Amino acid sequence: MTKEKELVFGHKNPDTDAVVAAISYSHLQNELGFNTEAVALGEPNEETKYVFDKFDYKYPRIVTAANGEVKSVMLVDHNESQQSLDDIGDLQVTHVVDHHRIANFETTSPLYYRAQPVGCTSTILWEMYNEEDVEVPGNLAALMASAIISDTLLLKSPTTTDEDKAALKSLSKTAGIDYESYGLDMLKAGTNLDSKSTKELIDMDAKSFEMNGKNVRIAQVNTVDIDETLKREAEFTADIKSENKSEGYNLFVLLITNILTSDTTGLVLGDENAVSVFENALNTKVEDNKASLPGVVSRKKQVVPPLNEKF
Amino acid sequence: MTKEKELVFGHKNPDTDAVVAAISYSHLQNELGFNTEAVALGEPNEETKYVFDKFDYKYPRIVTAANGEVKSVMLVDHNESQQSLDDIGDLQVTHVVDHHRIANFETTSPLYYRAQPVGCTSTILWEMYNEEDVEVPGNLAALMASAIISDTLLLKSPTTTDEDKAALKSLSKTAGIDYESYGLDMLKAGTNLDSKSTKELIDMDAKSFEMNGKNVRIAQVNTVDIDETLKREAEFTADIKSENKSEGYNLFVLLITNILTSDTTGLVLGDENAVSVFENALNTKVEDNKASLPGVVSRKKQVVPPLNEKF
Repeated sequence: MTKEKELVFGHKNPDTDAVVAAISYSHLQNELGFNTEAVALGEPNEETKYVFDKFDYKYPRIVTAANGEVKSVMLVDHNESQQSLDDIGDLQVTHVVDHHRIANFETTSPLYYRAQPVGCTSTILWEMYNEEDVEVPGNLAALMASAIISDTLLLKSPTTTDEDKAALKSLSKTAGIDYESYGLDMLKAGTNLDSKSTKELIDMDAKSFEMNGKNVRIAQVNTVDIDETLKREAEFTADIKSENKSEGYNLFVLLITNILTSDTTGLVLGDENAVSVFENALNTKVEDNKASLPGVVSRKKQVVPPLNEKF
Repeated sequence: MTKEKELVFGHKNPDTDAVVAAISYSHLQNELGFNTEAVALGEPNEETKYVFDKFDYKYPRIVTAANGEVKSVMLVDHNESQQSLDDIGDLQVTHVVDHHRIANFETTSPLYYRAQPVGCTSTILWEMYNEEDVEVPGNLAALMASAIISDTLLLKSPTTTDEDKAALKSLSKTAGIDYESYGLDMLKAGTNLDSKSTKELIDMDAKSFEMNGKNVRIAQVNTVDIDETLKREAEFTADIKSENKSEGYNLFVLLITNILTSDTTGLVLGDENAVSVFENALNTKVEDNKASLPGVVSRKKQVVPPLNEKF
């Protein structure tokens, strides 16, 4: 008896881990007897494109809603419904593998849920492959290693755990790559912002959060030169203001992160109250819409929790 | 360096699994280097008392709030905040091991979360002991076997999975018990309702659910003779009506379950609309406040999901 088909996917505005984790979880589940297809909820970003080109891997089919194609789904690398398929409310979630906080997530039935506070979903999946004694194919190992490099900024982000280190080492070995040199090339490929409009950049790796009734949008771009990126500050500011208006965001934060020095400058725009909450939460001053955030590289660990606390 | 102390506990109105899972998870975590204490959110029911007496095990300390005693906690056998410590909103949840739906649960930070759609939390914990290569002490194995017998009604509930069967067999062997004969004695001990007032019986194994803004309370008592239990119907009805009023429940369902025949009669009282939703969801008629529910034994699998769907 063939199981009923399910879709597996990561969050909207996919980054490398969101897409790769969907592929690797789908592969694992199919090996275990499920009938799944990995899909992506959006186009690849520059870094993800570099990874899929480099290892000659086919990017998954892009969907934004299930539209009755399946009844049930498996989520990776997210759980909050506003980051998921548009019609997630009509679907049964049977499995989740994630490394984020849990919020805005509710099911009517028991499910399989596995979250671990590690740097990358692909690290958890690597552990699951080991537990189930399923081999990771070489080119998939390269993708999973890339996802870990991406999420942990080459193991330098404060979200990095010993498990991420072990996973990256093992997967790099399987894939036959030198993760130090490859990782730097890959991260730099992701900082090539010139080909993107500022509108595209503030959408690219943006996530929405509901915090005590307020709509908070947090985007992040990686760079090797913050000043260079800020040459387009006026355009960024205009685009964010217009998006706050059209989407009803109370607060928009664009984190511009230098991946070499692990520092961030935040462009912070929104309701006066919300901006004060941000200053208070991040212990910083917003001047000319900009806040200096030395040592901050992780939205998930260093920005969302204090903001959520203060709201 | 000693880790900061955390409390581990199951839901309010604890049943055998809620208390036993707290004890066994606390033991496992302490073996792995955490600093935890298992506590219970209420007095033991008749069945749980029988189990702890039988294997001469000390019932955990009872608390209803952390009151600043700890900053962070680990939940077992529940996640919905209304089933948890009164001050759960002030505490950081670092770990959850559960087998229920996820709802009314939100964290600000990433956490360890493990849910599997199996019959009993103790089954998941048995798997975790195996994965971590930690031995289950003999008397704890007897408690964990009891929890599985309790939650799956001796493997007869539709929630029962192959994993529950494997866990019960293995744990019974470790504990040196014949689970068939012991299990029946234990379940019967839990159906001794005579010493309890109807008020106590409708509270004993009751859980609250928020369903689309409605407050739904579902209680369950096990019996070997439904007619016998219903001799006190007038008292049950009066107590439920008074509780609906004082607690603002829109719907109260008391499931009176015959553990030998696996059938249930529901006492159903609440707003007219809510009672219709119940009839519709469970495909039954409520007459004189009573509904026949043949083959229904599991609140979690056979009552909560259809009700939630229809609300």
